[in-house]
Amino acid sequence: MNRSEMMAAVKAEMPERRWTHTLGVMETSIILAERFGGDPERAERAAILHDVAKYWPTARMETMIKEHGLPEELLRYDKELWHAPVGAFVAERDYGVSDAEILDAIRYHTSGRERMTLMDKIVCLADYMEPGRDFPGVKHIRELAEHSLNRALLAGFDSTIMYLLQQGRRIFPLTIAARNDLILHLQEAGE
Amino acid sequence: MNRSEMMAAVKAEMPERRWTHTLGVMETSIILAERFGGDPERAERAAILHDVAKYWPTARMETMIKEHGLPEELLRYDKELWHAPVGAFVAERDYGVSDAEILDAIRYHTSGRERMTLMDKIVCLADYMEPGRDFPGVKHIRELAEHSLNRALLAGFDSTIMYLLQQGRRIFPLTIAARNDLILHLQEAGE
Repeated sequence: MNRSEMMAAVKAEMPERRWTHTLGVMETSIILAERFGGDPERAERAAILHDVAKYWPTARMETMIKEHGLPEELLRYDKELWHAPVGAFVAERDYGVSDAEILDAIRYHTSGRERMTLMDKIVCLADYMEPGRDFPGVKHIRELAEHSLNRALLAGFDSTIMYLLQQGRRIFPLTIAARNDLILHLQEAGE
Repeated sequence: MNRSEMMAAVKAEMPERRWTHTLGVMETSIILAERFGGDPERAERAAILHDVAKYWPTARMETMIKEHGLPEELLRYDKELWHAPVGAFVAERDYGVSDAEILDAIRYHTSGRERMTLMDKIVCLADYMEPGRDFPGVKHIRELAEHSLNRALLAGFDSTIMYLLQQGRRIFPLTIAARNDLILHLQEAGE
């Protein structure tokens, strides 16, 4: 499937507002890839697809997780997390994506993970800071992203964890693992 | 070893200030045990010993963790966490404690864990809120502890996680697991 076919198909899967967000993540992924030595074209491909399953009914996601061996641990956590691994599965099966880095960037764009790849980081950070985002701390994340992909992403995870703390909601362990790993990496690199 | 021998031996392991804290945790553990249906005498025993290894040199704790099969994962995290499992080991080996619930309450008093026992919760919460403690949120924790052990402990974990976020420090995964588990428990109990 070529780029414009893919965009048309993904657009049909979501409300206009979410498609505008997707366009923002695409644009920001390209900027971040150019800034930090990533591959803009592949990062954009991941960005197009990252929310492909975001508006699927919960039951459809749940069935897919169970029937296709996606991590069932997710079902014990917030539904907001489910669309990422479901999206990666759909990207491969229905959109013909075979590039493992693109699929991983889709799969981990919400939770993060330990040892995130450059592309994981670009798409995850773009999702936090695309121009349409407006939440406490987003300005600080954008400023950090001028110079440090890792610092900006750390601030993104911090904002998620802070939000979940304030809401009295559970925190997905992989996000903690991702944040811990980033801090260790920053310390070792002396960043 | 009887209660007063144990107290004298533990007191000798730490500065005066920390012994005063230990007396506070003992007193608070008894109050919480009486309030929430625990065993005051055994909770106090765990409280006496909870910080027995707190002032051991780092190298001594590290050796003990490695030589006695304590979780080596700890060595990749803050040293502040090490004294708890080391303390449980010392309580068993040097103080003759064989009560598994007392040993667990010592072992998990800093990190927490999933499926905390009543005694785990009492000692962990007493450590947060004993009268000598003074940190943002401690008053709120004490107020919650008037009625809900789980709500108060959740606020304690929240304060730890918030502190680590603000400090840019890593968060021990077991503390997240403990907090997630508490939230699930509160939801299921309709508390």
